[in-house]
Amino acid sequence: MNKLYIVKIGGHVLDDEPALQKFLKDFASIQAPKILIHGGGSIATKIGNSLGIESKYVDGRRITDGPTRDLVTMVYGGLINKQMVARLQVLQCNAMGVTGADGNLLKAVKRPVKQIDYGLVGDITPEDVNSTLLYFLLKQNTVPVFASLTHAQGEMLNTNADTIASVLAISLSKHFDTRLIFCFEKPGVLKDVTDETSVIRHLNKDLYERLLAEGSFHDGILPKLENAFAAIRSGVREVLIGEHTQLIANTGYETKGTLITLQ
Amino acid sequence: MNKLYIVKIGGHVLDDEPALQKFLKDFASIQAPKILIHGGGSIATKIGNSLGIESKYVDGRRITDGPTRDLVTMVYGGLINKQMVARLQVLQCNAMGVTGADGNLLKAVKRPVKQIDYGLVGDITPEDVNSTLLYFLLKQNTVPVFASLTHAQGEMLNTNADTIASVLAISLSKHFDTRLIFCFEKPGVLKDVTDETSVIRHLNKDLYERLLAEGSFHDGILPKLENAFAAIRSGVREVLIGEHTQLIANTGYETKGTLITLQ
Repeated sequence: MNKLYIVKIGGHVLDDEPALQKFLKDFASIQAPKILIHGGGSIATKIGNSLGIESKYVDGRRITDGPTRDLVTMVYGGLINKQMVARLQVLQCNAMGVTGADGNLLKAVKRPVKQIDYGLVGDITPEDVNSTLLYFLLKQNTVPVFASLTHAQGEMLNTNADTIASVLAISLSKHFDTRLIFCFEKPGVLKDVTDETSVIRHLNKDLYERLLAEGSFHDGILPKLENAFAAIRSGVREVLIGEHTQLIANTGYETKGTLITLQ
Repeated sequence: MNKLYIVKIGGHVLDDEPALQKFLKDFASIQAPKILIHGGGSIATKIGNSLGIESKYVDGRRITDGPTRDLVTMVYGGLINKQMVARLQVLQCNAMGVTGADGNLLKAVKRPVKQIDYGLVGDITPEDVNSTLLYFLLKQNTVPVFASLTHAQGEMLNTNADTIASVLAISLSKHFDTRLIFCFEKPGVLKDVTDETSVIRHLNKDLYERLLAEGSFHDGILPKLENAFAAIRSGVREVLIGEHTQLIANTGYETKGTLITLQ
């Protein structure tokens, strides 16, 4: 099977122009089928403030109301996505900016209201991916660039970018030998959160479960690890958690971040 | 050759919710390959005002400065485009929202500065269309929905939606028997601009040139007619100028608007 790289970048990189330019250059240089997933940076909050749209929280959980959904549709799906696509084009990368609504690539279910009404949030599973169209787009040498939005019943929905990356990786693992790369600000999963040199270089299911039972992981990394192992358990060959500056190394054999595999 | 419908809708429809819903339903029901091109409605101006972005004019011509370009990228390329795509999906139309940057579908040249600096505006020709990718998308039964944006040298650019429609029609005429439909608020090209029943039902090159010499056309319709005949002279089989409410009739044999052909 051909190699496929699915790369998720976090919001911090989007706010740091030199870091973003380096990242895009590195991403464009990957000589294999690839997909990029991004959320939004502080620009969404800034534009939201100007428009009088406030972030809402219930019990510490972020709620997506109508104005917030329109804001992220504009800023993630429009401004950030298209700026990134235009910049990748000039780097000879035939990027194609999409949301889950485009080509029905990610058909979600609006999150059911239980204790909390999260609002206009979309939940997705690997079965919700239009992998046929994605596969054909990749075969045409286009590079899908996903904004973290899905759709259901005629409406755009907000969806976590890590989840989108994980779900895409699972779905495409039937066509490709897939490496899912989560880029963030740390060099990898750390044994000691205060020591950046304490990167766990390789994490398999057994070690993960042991460290989890020992309570070794920092709260901030747990959702990423859950997404990573969800992918690994469902057929994704490798997940890499690492720093956005290390993308080139982390697409190779001698990775700098935390490489996660089943065995 | 297979039939292809390329439909451009103006901003007024976007501001009229019941009209937009009817239009989208009619568009979704067209049983042939099809492409939609849209500009923006008054929502762009409204959001621009809230963000303190003013429309700029020099000698009566609209200028696209940086903040205006970002505004249209957000609102046309993000909010309006994705809302329309999500709504078409629910109508069983596999819409795929794009700008000219996506998949390098429309690579522009930034308009050169002569008497007026139009700012971040992209000029395009039929040679600038990535018709291979468009053809492939149409073959996959996806329906490209274009926001009126192009790109050059890493930047998004504002481009007239009528021009995009015309250039796409010319480029795709080598693959399809193409009808280009301009939808607006009038029932068609009028002999007498004050009389809505005076629709010219059929206009060919000879009649157009005669009426043009006689000064019969209202200023407002002239740019549309120029775009229409540019398309007709370059191989587009038919252009239809008509009311957005008449889309179904205007995709058939008994058209209600002004049908424009070479002969």
